[in-house]
Amino acid sequence: MAGAVAAVRSGVPVILFGDQAVIRPLVPRNVDISIVHTDDAVGMSDAAVGVRRRPDSSMRLALREVASGRARAAVTCGHTGAALVAAVLDLGVLSGVERPAVATVLPRSDGGQLVLADAGANVDCRPEQLASFAVLGAAFAESLGVESPRVGLLSNGSEPGKGNMQVRATLPLIEALPVHVVGNIEPPAAFRGECDVLVCDGFAGNIMLKSVEGAAETVLALLKAELKQHRSAQVGAWLLQRVLRKLRGKVSWESIGGGLLLGVDGVVVIGHGRSTEEAVTAAIHLAARSSEGELVDRLRERLS
Amino acid sequence: MAGAVAAVRSGVPVILFGDQAVIRPLVPRNVDISIVHTDDAVGMSDAAVGVRRRPDSSMRLALREVASGRARAAVTCGHTGAALVAAVLDLGVLSGVERPAVATVLPRSDGGQLVLADAGANVDCRPEQLASFAVLGAAFAESLGVESPRVGLLSNGSEPGKGNMQVRATLPLIEALPVHVVGNIEPPAAFRGECDVLVCDGFAGNIMLKSVEGAAETVLALLKAELKQHRSAQVGAWLLQRVLRKLRGKVSWESIGGGLLLGVDGVVVIGHGRSTEEAVTAAIHLAARSSEGELVDRLRERLS
Repeated sequence: MAGAVAAVRSGVPVILFGDQAVIRPLVPRNVDISIVHTDDAVGMSDAAVGVRRRPDSSMRLALREVASGRARAAVTCGHTGAALVAAVLDLGVLSGVERPAVATVLPRSDGGQLVLADAGANVDCRPEQLASFAVLGAAFAESLGVESPRVGLLSNGSEPGKGNMQVRATLPLIEALPVHVVGNIEPPAAFRGECDVLVCDGFAGNIMLKSVEGAAETVLALLKAELKQHRSAQVGAWLLQRVLRKLRGKVSWESIGGGLLLGVDGVVVIGHGRSTEEAVTAAIHLAARSSEGELVDRLRERLS
Repeated sequence: MAGAVAAVRSGVPVILFGDQAVIRPLVPRNVDISIVHTDDAVGMSDAAVGVRRRPDSSMRLALREVASGRARAAVTCGHTGAALVAAVLDLGVLSGVERPAVATVLPRSDGGQLVLADAGANVDCRPEQLASFAVLGAAFAESLGVESPRVGLLSNGSEPGKGNMQVRATLPLIEALPVHVVGNIEPPAAFRGECDVLVCDGFAGNIMLKSVEGAAETVLALLKAELKQHRSAQVGAWLLQRVLRKLRGKVSWESIGGGLLLGVDGVVVIGHGRSTEEAVTAAIHLAARSSEGELVDRLRERLS
């Protein structure tokens, strides 16, 4: 709620879907937020099946508001798999898409952006589905301003022939697509900027995403612990606070907000299940930016 | 070569296997290193099949030196899959092991150690094989001094029912084993210390390992770039150099050296294919420490 209120205050109009009796008291008087009341919600244990039986859940009502054109984009911090199914049901899939994918943007050490697709929606993929993420990811990278994005396939080794069975079956399929393919890519090479789009199934992508989150937290925690031990380093420590805060803003999912669901006919942002106020605001801003851009049109063009 | 020489100078006796004409000139006069000559080597493109046809390759000769008891441990920075096959051929598998696994240790933010098994040797695993890594990883954690190690299964969500098909099939198998299972674990929770052993297939494990490497490099690179921009922070920058160097030593594979091959009848360390001098020395020290410990005996005990 605090994240939504902050987004409204920053100029993005927001409609909230859910239990009015719970939501209304949390909206400050001077903040203009619309509320669409519903008692039903998709729970974290509902998964894909449950969402079909809940047409009046808050998640599905919000998506239908996008389908009807009354809203420009939808944001959910609910169950990722359920959101994927709900978006397919209520928005429909763009022609030519095997499976929609969630794309997330990570910072690279060369200052560029790395598009990860899929970042967690499709944990079990056939090679054909995995290959189609290359097209979705490339279109997304283009909408971010990257010309002729270089597409890599996430693998445990860069040589052709490396990877598990799925990767080895997928590489030739991707190489046959009209995208600029740079082959198998390992995570450190991706972070150094050897590709703009990293294609993977939602399981491997989510492991990568969360490993980065865990590693960044660990590095910052170890750095703080080290600084406490060195009295001499403490002299510079307070100067570093600002730098560390800025750095945290670059590498944390809180500042990125969430992933974009690519391949459905509308803009949908899927936020982290444990989103903070800051993360919810960032997710709403990401949705607003993406709806202003030409992401869905660009995807449609690419796919045709 | 420089890494091996440094290890000898630090007191670890080393035997080198390979082309004498290439190796000999690289050994300084006052350094005592034995060389076992062979013209044959397992190449990075040989993979599992090639190693069977190369009984006199440097990798296999080194492993047979361990099998015969003339060496206490073997170290290779060659092809991981080939090393696994070669170790199975020349050392044999401990009774009760489905598939040997490579275990690597990562630093946790709570100061503890996280054992990752498998870290890259078995990229395609059946659930039964994956489950057996729990026993191998737990025995390894015990050999590092952890009592009743908590074993987690790497997943994209902590709730039971989360994960891909492989993870969902593996969790009940692990829960039936005589190890302390804490369920599905996401990378950030593992780094915070919610488990001591993280079980995964070699593909996911390697993606996690290399994502951590890439993220740590990225955080340190961004930190340096930020420090350069802030004149005020530069005052503290030189004080930080020492701290950053120590931190890098904690999180880089160069200081960890490599992974231990668990489940074969001998101590084998598999180093990174792009090991630096420092990494090779660390791999040799890891092999020496592990051969002094009771790792193989403990594994045998656990497995019976």
